[in-house]
Amino acid sequence: MKENRYEIRIGGSGGQGVILMAVILAEAVGVYGGQFVCQTQSYGPEARGGKSKAEVVVSGTEIDYPKVIQMDLFLAMNQPSLDAYFYDFKPNGLLLVDSTFVEQIPTSRVIAIPFTRIARQEFKQEMVANMVALGALGHLCPQVRVEHLREALLARVPPHTRALNGDAFAAGLAAAQGVDLAALPHSIVSEEQGDEV
Amino acid sequence: MKENRYEIRIGGSGGQGVILMAVILAEAVGVYGGQFVCQTQSYGPEARGGKSKAEVVVSGTEIDYPKVIQMDLFLAMNQPSLDAYFYDFKPNGLLLVDSTFVEQIPTSRVIAIPFTRIARQEFKQEMVANMVALGALGHLCPQVRVEHLREALLARVPPHTRALNGDAFAAGLAAAQGVDLAALPHSIVSEEQGDEV
Repeated sequence: MKENRYEIRIGGSGGQGVILMAVILAEAVGVYGGQFVCQTQSYGPEARGGKSKAEVVVSGTEIDYPKVIQMDLFLAMNQPSLDAYFYDFKPNGLLLVDSTFVEQIPTSRVIAIPFTRIARQEFKQEMVANMVALGALGHLCPQVRVEHLREALLARVPPHTRALNGDAFAAGLAAAQGVDLAALPHSIVSEEQGDEV
Repeated sequence: MKENRYEIRIGGSGGQGVILMAVILAEAVGVYGGQFVCQTQSYGPEARGGKSKAEVVVSGTEIDYPKVIQMDLFLAMNQPSLDAYFYDFKPNGLLLVDSTFVEQIPTSRVIAIPFTRIARQEFKQEMVANMVALGALGHLCPQVRVEHLREALLARVPPHTRALNGDAFAAGLAAAQGVDLAALPHSIVSEEQGDEV
């Protein structure tokens, strides 16, 4: 079962639209892509102090355990959520950060794009930073097709904001297309060892 | 662990705002109420045909398994979702339905309120039916406080829609306050037997 799973976590502050990102991603993969998907958010005493997280687990078969066990992809929109939720990152996972707010990075397997700065400069609207990030994720996550993600996004946002959100998505996609994924270092950990970490 | 859990499912069509209801409920209980909460939606081949579901599991202690095992409360916004997602209803659970769209009811432990008709008649907006339903749920669900639910709702909806959504919530609350919960029949099943069903 486990090798079938692809596990994504998104972390950020309350105002950064973390849940909306995860819902759109889950709908793109599940409703539009036809895979099994569970999308979860958990709250507890630790869910304080400017950070929240949402998770998406994708599988080719039915999902027994819907929470992240080890992250394949972690999108961190700010430093507190990166610090708090990095703990179960896979050795050869991919970290994607909003470099506007993140300075301390705990892995070399990282792609840093200033989502919020792009939103601010290109669209004069910080609040579309999450859609910029989704555009980048659409390019970098092998489990979702860009067109499914765009479709799911346009179906979820309020109709009068579709053009703005679609443009923000395109800007994030373009930023990620400029990144050379093959240049990222790989940990010298076998998959088996990696799973035990 | 299990006796600590309180499990809620919300089912409806894609356009009825099922996920938003569950997110607001989870934030009311978790962020405002300080309990442990997991909120989940799952997609798979069965997530077709005008129905979707979202789940909220509440606990006084950390939640190991975040999906519903047996529902304490099931809010069904239409007939297809009631038919599809009723299967793990607790013997003495509570079913809450939108009687605008639901006619076939599989239990006598039901409260039927025409959420969509109220939204249509009082607010000329069918799309606030989910907020009417949340108001009713705030009165009927012992795990959430009405004021937490209202706070979470107002924080989640777009600012220019707060008055409308707040009024819809109040209308649902009032409708549920007219219901006599004590008059509902109880199944003659012990809790132990009930858990095994």
